[in-house]
Amino acid sequence: MTKNLDYLFYPKSVAVVGVSRKEKSIGREILKNLIEFGFDGRVYPINPSAYAINSIRCYPNLSAIPEETIDLAIVVVPSQYVKAVAEEAVENGVKSMVIITAGFREVGEKGKDLEDSIHKICSDAGIRTIGPNCMGVFNGNQPFMNGTFAPLQPLGGNIGFISQSGALGVVVMEYATALKLGFSKFVSLGNKMDVNSNNMLEYYAKDEETKVILAYLESFSDPLNFSQVASKVSKNKPILMLKSGRTAAGARAATSHTGALAGKDSVISAAMESSGVIRVNSVDELFASAMGFLKSPLPKGDKVAVLTNAGGPGTLLTDALISLGMHINTLSEETQKRLSEVIPPEASPLNPVDLIASADADRYTKSLKILLEDDDVDSVIVIFVPPLMIQTVNVANSIERILEEDPTDKPVLCCFMGRNFLMNSQLNFKYPIYEFPETAARVLRDMYIYSKWRATPSEESVQLVPAKNKTAVKKLIKGALKKESDWVNQKTVQSILEHYGFSFPQSLIINSLEDLIDASGKIGFPLVAKLASNTISHKSDKGGVFLDLRTNDEIIFAWRSIQKVYSKARVPNEDRSVLVQKYFHSGVELALGSSYDDQFGHVLMLGSGGVLIELIKDVIFRLVPVNRSEAEKMIHQLRSFALLLGYRGEPESDIGELISAIIRLSQLVTDHPQISEIDMNPILALPKGQKPIILDARIKLAKVFNHSKP
Amino acid sequence: MTKNLDYLFYPKSVAVVGVSRKEKSIGREILKNLIEFGFDGRVYPINPSAYAINSIRCYPNLSAIPEETIDLAIVVVPSQYVKAVAEEAVENGVKSMVIITAGFREVGEKGKDLEDSIHKICSDAGIRTIGPNCMGVFNGNQPFMNGTFAPLQPLGGNIGFISQSGALGVVVMEYATALKLGFSKFVSLGNKMDVNSNNMLEYYAKDEETKVILAYLESFSDPLNFSQVASKVSKNKPILMLKSGRTAAGARAATSHTGALAGKDSVISAAMESSGVIRVNSVDELFASAMGFLKSPLPKGDKVAVLTNAGGPGTLLTDALISLGMHINTLSEETQKRLSEVIPPEASPLNPVDLIASADADRYTKSLKILLEDDDVDSVIVIFVPPLMIQTVNVANSIERILEEDPTDKPVLCCFMGRNFLMNSQLNFKYPIYEFPETAARVLRDMYIYSKWRATPSEESVQLVPAKNKTAVKKLIKGALKKESDWVNQKTVQSILEHYGFSFPQSLIINSLEDLIDASGKIGFPLVAKLASNTISHKSDKGGVFLDLRTNDEIIFAWRSIQKVYSKARVPNEDRSVLVQKYFHSGVELALGSSYDDQFGHVLMLGSGGVLIELIKDVIFRLVPVNRSEAEKMIHQLRSFALLLGYRGEPESDIGELISAIIRLSQLVTDHPQISEIDMNPILALPKGQKPIILDARIKLAKVFNHSKP
Repeated sequence: MTKNLDYLFYPKSVAVVGVSRKEKSIGREILKNLIEFGFDGRVYPINPSAYAINSIRCYPNLSAIPEETIDLAIVVVPSQYVKAVAEEAVENGVKSMVIITAGFREVGEKGKDLEDSIHKICSDAGIRTIGPNCMGVFNGNQPFMNGTFAPLQPLGGNIGFISQSGALGVVVMEYATALKLGFSKFVSLGNKMDVNSNNMLEYYAKDEETKVILAYLESFSDPLNFSQVASKVSKNKPILMLKSGRTAAGARAATSHTGALAGKDSVISAAMESSGVIRVNSVDELFASAMGFLKSPLPKGDKVAVLTNAGGPGTLLTDALISLGMHINTLSEETQKRLSEVIPPEASPLNPVDLIASADADRYTKSLKILLEDDDVDSVIVIFVPPLMIQTVNVANSIERILEEDPTDKPVLCCFMGRNFLMNSQLNFKYPIYEFPETAARVLRDMYIYSKWRATPSEESVQLVPAKNKTAVKKLIKGALKKESDWVNQKTVQSILEHYGFSFPQSLIINSLEDLIDASGKIGFPLVAKLASNTISHKSDKGGVFLDLRTNDEIIFAWRSIQKVYSKARVPNEDRSVLVQKYFHSGVELALGSSYDDQFGHVLMLGSGGVLIELIKDVIFRLVPVNRSEAEKMIHQLRSFALLLGYRGEPESDIGELISAIIRLSQLVTDHPQISEIDMNPILALPKGQKPIILDARIKLAKVFNHSKP
Repeated sequence: MTKNLDYLFYPKSVAVVGVSRKEKSIGREILKNLIEFGFDGRVYPINPSAYAINSIRCYPNLSAIPEETIDLAIVVVPSQYVKAVAEEAVENGVKSMVIITAGFREVGEKGKDLEDSIHKICSDAGIRTIGPNCMGVFNGNQPFMNGTFAPLQPLGGNIGFISQSGALGVVVMEYATALKLGFSKFVSLGNKMDVNSNNMLEYYAKDEETKVILAYLESFSDPLNFSQVASKVSKNKPILMLKSGRTAAGARAATSHTGALAGKDSVISAAMESSGVIRVNSVDELFASAMGFLKSPLPKGDKVAVLTNAGGPGTLLTDALISLGMHINTLSEETQKRLSEVIPPEASPLNPVDLIASADADRYTKSLKILLEDDDVDSVIVIFVPPLMIQTVNVANSIERILEEDPTDKPVLCCFMGRNFLMNSQLNFKYPIYEFPETAARVLRDMYIYSKWRATPSEESVQLVPAKNKTAVKKLIKGALKKESDWVNQKTVQSILEHYGFSFPQSLIINSLEDLIDASGKIGFPLVAKLASNTISHKSDKGGVFLDLRTNDEIIFAWRSIQKVYSKARVPNEDRSVLVQKYFHSGVELALGSSYDDQFGHVLMLGSGGVLIELIKDVIFRLVPVNRSEAEKMIHQLRSFALLLGYRGEPESDIGELISAIIRLSQLVTDHPQISEIDMNPILALPKGQKPIILDARIKLAKVFNHSKP
């Protein structure tokens, strides 16, 4: 929904409603910013009791402005008058509004009602609105509009910024300005009554002046849409996002197994990862990365060559790169030979290439050129620690020169250590320059991850399950929903999952010891005997699971123990069933499931099974739908991935079948959104040619289902 | 060894040997720095062909200086002349030397020989020497000596700095100066021919002007001593260390199981942790932490109160603190009540305390005072995001005032966002101020960890093993060393460990199937049968381990399978023994061992057992000897610690017995340093009242043992 947003950023006429004569008041600052930044249109101050402000004629209200409809009204009147201003705006055909005023949704129920009524007035009239409770909007290009009350004039440039917080917006502007990074547009969204971050992502996607999109968010207002919008936008422009609330939210009380692990923040990270958004952890990371994305091409691979004049920082950089998953590869013999021709014998042509302290601009540029010509080098990080006789600025200038004379599609990131140079000159260069090796390493990694994302072709989600099975499951769910419990009984669980192509081991539900002994004859040892209840969870904790039973004696013992657990839980006699199934000695235990998040909808979860899942939280999340390449990435991201490749003499698991299981689960919860929770734990990955086998599964249904996917 | 180091930092007379008339030459820069920094003694330029430099009379050589012995000679002559200068220095009774000149050990064998011969000349005469290949020494107090060639004048202050690298030394000086942090002393050690980092740690420990010790190291020259020296020094003064080479070294080829995991860097981290040294990851972390340690008392606990005027940064800070292991505790009702009296109703007295945007200096100081008076608050972090009408400097000043009027022993760290203030004023304040919440959080965590270290009383290492057992093991090792293999046979392994109080399950070594069946009768099912070879490693990978055998059929199958493995490995018939022992269903599998590091000596290792140890690298290292509190800390640091507390209905393990096992292992390798490798994997932690049981153990002895502990 980017309709009419242009009026907010490209107005011909701006009215500042409620501007006061008082210096340093918010309205006055906005007026001042508009004028000083050189707004290329007409500004109308609105104040019923002033004759003129800043030598500009004042109007008592919007209606009093002659012969002109206002494109943008920036409203700073106290909250109790905002509604009247909105009504007046509608009457006078105002095209868009920014409501700076605070005191709405954020102060409680009454404020929320007032905000809602204003929203209705504006949206009925088709007026797009930013805020309330925000710091304004900014356009760094024609018509040069600084419609914010920031105490500085930001620079024009190519960053499209979305800030939820006004306070942090000012900080961000100051920070960017100090780094000489400019904005194409800047918007502080405040309460997001109308325009939200998704709208802005779409708008920036189409905005030619925006090359990189940066966002600071505290919450998502339309999370279900976020992933869809962001993944489309990020295929063309990088989105860097700082999202606060990492841990506090994660500590929220847990309701169930999967639910507990899927703390909000994992879901948010999953949403970002699913949609190619680069998540950063602080304001300085945000701008360090922005500088890289703005001033450098993207790396095509992860192989980095390092050029340095000092060993120590070279090692610090190598450490950082390797621990971030990048590679410092051995240079080809040809490259080493060519380097040896331009560096002294005490220097080292290995990677990191140590030019030693005597390296001047000439040695730097010659070596850099050689590295860039090596097909096995995807990017170069240059470190320069200023020795006595050599000026940083000379090295910096000559690098700029060769990058201009002989443009490369490989990133060249520089780390010029020493404060004095950085403070003065860093930012006038056309390539990214950092103070510390660790920063350069992190930025390059972010650029590489984004580059991979952009290179992955968009995939249609795969349909692996026939329509008739979908219909059958629909019926099963409808039936289950009619009954009391929200947990589905075991038989139905199995049937639902089998319709979606999942396998269970041969198993029998048994109600007497006699039947149990018969069953063991049918299935054959070794066996598993399990308490078969859909209400008792954490069965193994309670002594309700017996593995690897090999004799009748052991089976009898298991039966008796399970009955004791039932007695303790006061389960009626007729419900005390026991499930027997084949025991598997080999295979890799995994957990596969999905839970429903209020904000983002269904979240898929793949994790190590058994003790590992809770102990080391080896769990990967993704929003549904999950396509083939995302499913594969989930598996590779498991810390226990090595187990699947065959560990300590065990055979390799069938990864293809595992991918297909993930896709089928994704389809199951997409087709039947009433499944609010599903847990296959453990599900056993088996060797090549075999489907994974579900050893235990639970499904919970939501009786009332509020969300509808767009 | 801090003898005579005073001459290096407090000389009355300094000769600069080899100073040239050329501007910007190294010698000339040193002379200039000495003069400009206001050296409070006499400077003698030495140059055979100059009449005067900098209007100061030149002398042709050290001998020509009349009526005075030189306290410090700073040598910048080319490397081939340094030896002659050293000889002349000895002749003339020079007290100490700094050799700036490069071209020694670092360029190869010939340089090393030259360096060694110079070292001999100086040390025979008792002359302490810094360098060669360094950037000089600095004393920020009386006699105000800047004997470096850094292109700036650093400030005097309370940081004692040790830099191995000259290049990074200059960067560090620039960085500190920009932050207005000053040095008590600064030394660049270069090749560390004589004075090394341990000497400097001891020297700074005694130096009254040094409050915090900072070090940048690339290697340890006397690692065996490091831990001893550092742990003593750090009980009085914090040591912050940046050590490069984290990953490259870790990638070094592995020689054995324990060896592989104990990559150099884990050992270095273990050495730092064992000795209370705070390890940082970059130059900016180093100085951010230094500022905290210098300008603030240490926190007594981990409970942090946050005071902010903006929600977003407050959440960012909370995120950072919690993920670093600090606590944001709920404030007492009393404190909340008191806060409510000084903040407006829309503000929040919870923690983080949100003063909202209208908060001025007065609201800040009143709230801060209340928080500091709460006994349940160990430290406070204040965030201020500048709104329009309120100046950062006013808030900053009033915080300074209340901290002066009413001094507190609790840390107050501030985060004043917004570049403009920081660039100009941050550094004139007497308390630490940071730009970003994440930095403040990390610094406070470092301070808390150090505070805990300092509060832990030094412990004598415990002796749990009687002397006669030590003697018995001495004999066993002597006997084993006479034989061929460096791996000790199983019987001796068990005997050694039993002498040190370790337990094994009842087990028998069996050479025929008949004996095996007899043995199963004696021990009782379930059983483990294992290939009993001291040459074949990774037994389970090769199919040589059978667990949980419950019937004669299963035993026979195991016997045959093991014999097949033996055949395949062409083990002679008479050596094909099988070990049978009791199988334990419960208990927590751990790995406990020690390996010998060339630099640091014996390193203890405690890890999760089984698959976990290699998959998630859940391993904790410490240098020996390990005392009780360190052993306890190792156990708590395990990621799988939860398993030991009793997981999913399993009983709690006996932690006390585990601590004692770690101490006994520490004693074993201390008493018998020939044990170059020992692996107890798995060792089973058992419930309360039971000692851990070793299920498999290997010991390797070093025939030649070069190191001797001091």
